[in-house]
Amino acid sequence: MSEFYDIIKRRKMVRQYIKDKPIPQEIVDKLIANAHRAPSAGHTQVQEFIIVQDPLIKEKLSEAALNQEQVYDAPLSIVVCANTSRSVGRYGKRGREFYSIIDGAFASMLILLTAVNEGIGACFVGAFLDDKVSEILELPKYVKPIGIIALGFPAEDPSKFKRIDISKLVHYEKYSNQKQQK
Amino acid sequence: MSEFYDIIKRRKMVRQYIKDKPIPQEIVDKLIANAHRAPSAGHTQVQEFIIVQDPLIKEKLSEAALNQEQVYDAPLSIVVCANTSRSVGRYGKRGREFYSIIDGAFASMLILLTAVNEGIGACFVGAFLDDKVSEILELPKYVKPIGIIALGFPAEDPSKFKRIDISKLVHYEKYSNQKQQK
Repeated sequence: MSEFYDIIKRRKMVRQYIKDKPIPQEIVDKLIANAHRAPSAGHTQVQEFIIVQDPLIKEKLSEAALNQEQVYDAPLSIVVCANTSRSVGRYGKRGREFYSIIDGAFASMLILLTAVNEGIGACFVGAFLDDKVSEILELPKYVKPIGIIALGFPAEDPSKFKRIDISKLVHYEKYSNQKQQK
Repeated sequence: MSEFYDIIKRRKMVRQYIKDKPIPQEIVDKLIANAHRAPSAGHTQVQEFIIVQDPLIKEKLSEAALNQEQVYDAPLSIVVCANTSRSVGRYGKRGREFYSIIDGAFASMLILLTAVNEGIGACFVGAFLDDKVSEILELPKYVKPIGIIALGFPAEDPSKFKRIDISKLVHYEKYSNQKQQK
């Protein structure tokens, strides 16, 4: 199997991290460099990244993320945001409410995969109070938080979940058609 | 550089495809298999995939996608959808309007990267009339189209766009802070 498929296969959310083992700056740089290569609607490049290491800010963020502890426990989080000021003039509501989320998720996926390749455990957190996160990070009104990615050296083997059988999720030509026409 | 970083680097939207050269089924299977490994909010596994090859459906989809020709020209498209019936009971509005898009984008990013690895050109199309796409593919009300990924053997060198300098997109602890504290 190719290295790349192995990375996809090994990617699982990791929620427990080795204490007091920070992520080296060169790895942070790789995470951001790859996220920066994410596509965006009409190349509006809305994606921005807030790197959080300050314990006080992590604590507040964790609270805003419905007390998810991994946000506090992780030595570092990257908050992926979408700067809609670059897209809303061109795309209006769809820019603000759809492309911004897609583009933020594209960048987030690249961070999650890069983390695997660098031996870092990562957990994407999408459950948070938007207004609280914006307040904590002092985001301008036009910058939307899309995800908080908690990162650290892994201190657990992540759970493996059963998945719905692929044949139930694939359709041909129309939704009702789950068998391929030959 | 690792194979994986090279894939991220080479990933560009490709909008022109070699005519009459279909994508082998084994590659389609890999695209779907990797997309199927995408994470989802609370492991709700909302992602579903419609594989479109029928010229008539491609034509209608292309119209619904504001006449973007690559959707018609591509020998095959994968329409990534989110089946919100699996998430909305648990997450309500946030499931329908936020997680569904994130999760669909996660799966889409994995398709885009896998395409690079398989020598396939791909273009993610997010600009379309949702209702039209739903009608064409006969999606149930609870299944949301997230993206149309046009796929084919590449017949162009994709454009390289200048990107905003990374230092302008990275912030430390708070949005206003663009220099790292030592």
